[in-house]
Amino acid sequence: MASPDSNSNPMFKRTALIGIGLIGSSISHAARRAGLVGEIVCSSQTSEERERALALGLASKAYANPADAVKGADLVILCAPVGAFKEIAEAIGPHLDKGAIVSDVGSVKAAAVRDVAPSMPEGVHFIPGHPIAGTEQSGPDAGFATLFDNRWCILTPAPDTNPAALAKLEEFWRKLGSNVELMTPEHHDMVLAITSHVPHLIAYNIVNTAAHLERVTDSEVIKFSAAGFRDFTRIAASDPVMWRDVFLNNKDAVLEMLGRFSEDLVALQRAIRFGDGEMLEQTFTKARAIRRGIIQAGQDTAQPDFGRNAARARESST
Amino acid sequence: MASPDSNSNPMFKRTALIGIGLIGSSISHAARRAGLVGEIVCSSQTSEERERALALGLASKAYANPADAVKGADLVILCAPVGAFKEIAEAIGPHLDKGAIVSDVGSVKAAAVRDVAPSMPEGVHFIPGHPIAGTEQSGPDAGFATLFDNRWCILTPAPDTNPAALAKLEEFWRKLGSNVELMTPEHHDMVLAITSHVPHLIAYNIVNTAAHLERVTDSEVIKFSAAGFRDFTRIAASDPVMWRDVFLNNKDAVLEMLGRFSEDLVALQRAIRFGDGEMLEQTFTKARAIRRGIIQAGQDTAQPDFGRNAARARESST
Repeated sequence: MASPDSNSNPMFKRTALIGIGLIGSSISHAARRAGLVGEIVCSSQTSEERERALALGLASKAYANPADAVKGADLVILCAPVGAFKEIAEAIGPHLDKGAIVSDVGSVKAAAVRDVAPSMPEGVHFIPGHPIAGTEQSGPDAGFATLFDNRWCILTPAPDTNPAALAKLEEFWRKLGSNVELMTPEHHDMVLAITSHVPHLIAYNIVNTAAHLERVTDSEVIKFSAAGFRDFTRIAASDPVMWRDVFLNNKDAVLEMLGRFSEDLVALQRAIRFGDGEMLEQTFTKARAIRRGIIQAGQDTAQPDFGRNAARARESST
Repeated sequence: MASPDSNSNPMFKRTALIGIGLIGSSISHAARRAGLVGEIVCSSQTSEERERALALGLASKAYANPADAVKGADLVILCAPVGAFKEIAEAIGPHLDKGAIVSDVGSVKAAAVRDVAPSMPEGVHFIPGHPIAGTEQSGPDAGFATLFDNRWCILTPAPDTNPAALAKLEEFWRKLGSNVELMTPEHHDMVLAITSHVPHLIAYNIVNTAAHLERVTDSEVIKFSAAGFRDFTRIAASDPVMWRDVFLNNKDAVLEMLGRFSEDLVALQRAIRFGDGEMLEQTFTKARAIRRGIIQAGQDTAQPDFGRNAARARESST
């Protein structure tokens, strides 16, 4: 591994990652890979995470207090659960350097603006962001340099955002491997409600339903999960606190999309009850087109079963 | 590839696969791998599938009429959509050899018994089966020899099933790579409703919901699908006719499990509406245990993101 501070002409001299879980640690790896940053420091509430961050070389210093981490930083990225943003913003606000770019990676954006913007001093560029990438794993050990490659990062600048600061943050994310798209915080929250928040909610929900049946045991659910159920358990293994905060902070869009989902589900339920095979077949046929679009856009593997069988073959051959 | 009929002392002399899609073709590959069968013949409704089956060496003969395929067979496996079972059973019944074992791979079992058993002549052993394995792909080209390895195959024998015939079919599935579990058709249908049928229905449903929003475009759904949505599109790419038949033939169990799912979802919706973070976090935390159980049971990969990132790394390095 390269020395943490080996880059002589970085985009940012000192980057502060507030929170060093899956996304924070992946930013560190990807920024080092691209030679984008000078010093990286981080903060974390737990001594375990701070120790892991230092041991893994994710940061040269790891602070308990985010206010200490942001001093002298020209880039600050909040990588903590959204529910902690207000407190963090209030803590770091007075210690931010003039000209610093402050961003975040939270899964909701209107609430991020609501909780962070009021604490940002004059001359600091706050530009909310959200990389659409992740795995079901959490913590500083879960990160890796390729996480953002060919994924999208959404930035939600305000109308009066400094264009140079925005351009610099866009370039940063492109060099981390991402494509960048700009939209309003409100539109982001609507898009993510359907592409992320409701999918996670129904995944958590079906796992919960399956675990509380009287007539089917947990052991049966596990043994026969390869029939479809196991796919849902992956995202249902995601960080509970992060997801609690998502739902508490994107209530309106989630409830709207959930209403649409439930309405459509009732229509399918009715088709099953009354034996309307034509309606079922038509609905199922149309769903294939979206899958094809996702594969063509490079957002999922074309390999059957997510390539699991290839993974199994490699595991058994070693 | 070995010659189709090279095995001198096979478990079954002539195996007839009625339907040669993903499961039928995988049985052919896996049976050949294990040296279980002598001649394999198949039937398919379409000339394209018959030609592919012959070209791929899946069968030595491919018939349009299932009645022709079963003549002289000591093992017959129905690998067609469940909705076709009644017609197939009526067609093959008069042509089955005494002592033949007839099984199937349908995803519902009470309906299979209802539709097939009445046409089975005296002396033929009908033992319904369901291998819990598959991918989202269809057709004779989709099959592969390792599909059943370390998966479960459920058999649902009647109380008066011939024990020797049952033992032989169990051994066949074990040699294809599966573990075997026995249960009643009714219990099977309940277990699969929650581990397979409802998961497929809600996957189809959310893809459908996402495709019909006014305020979020299909292009946005595709671009930002890596946030969770894409996981659902895989099983929503499964064969529409097969799944139509599943829902038409397992109505009661699916409606019961769907009722439970919707009830639980309303409770989560209510927690979101009223900001009950504790309830959300507790529910999300409990879901992790089932994921761990599935990985420990060898029913899914422990690699993050189903190993997609490893697949991506290999693709980009070649």
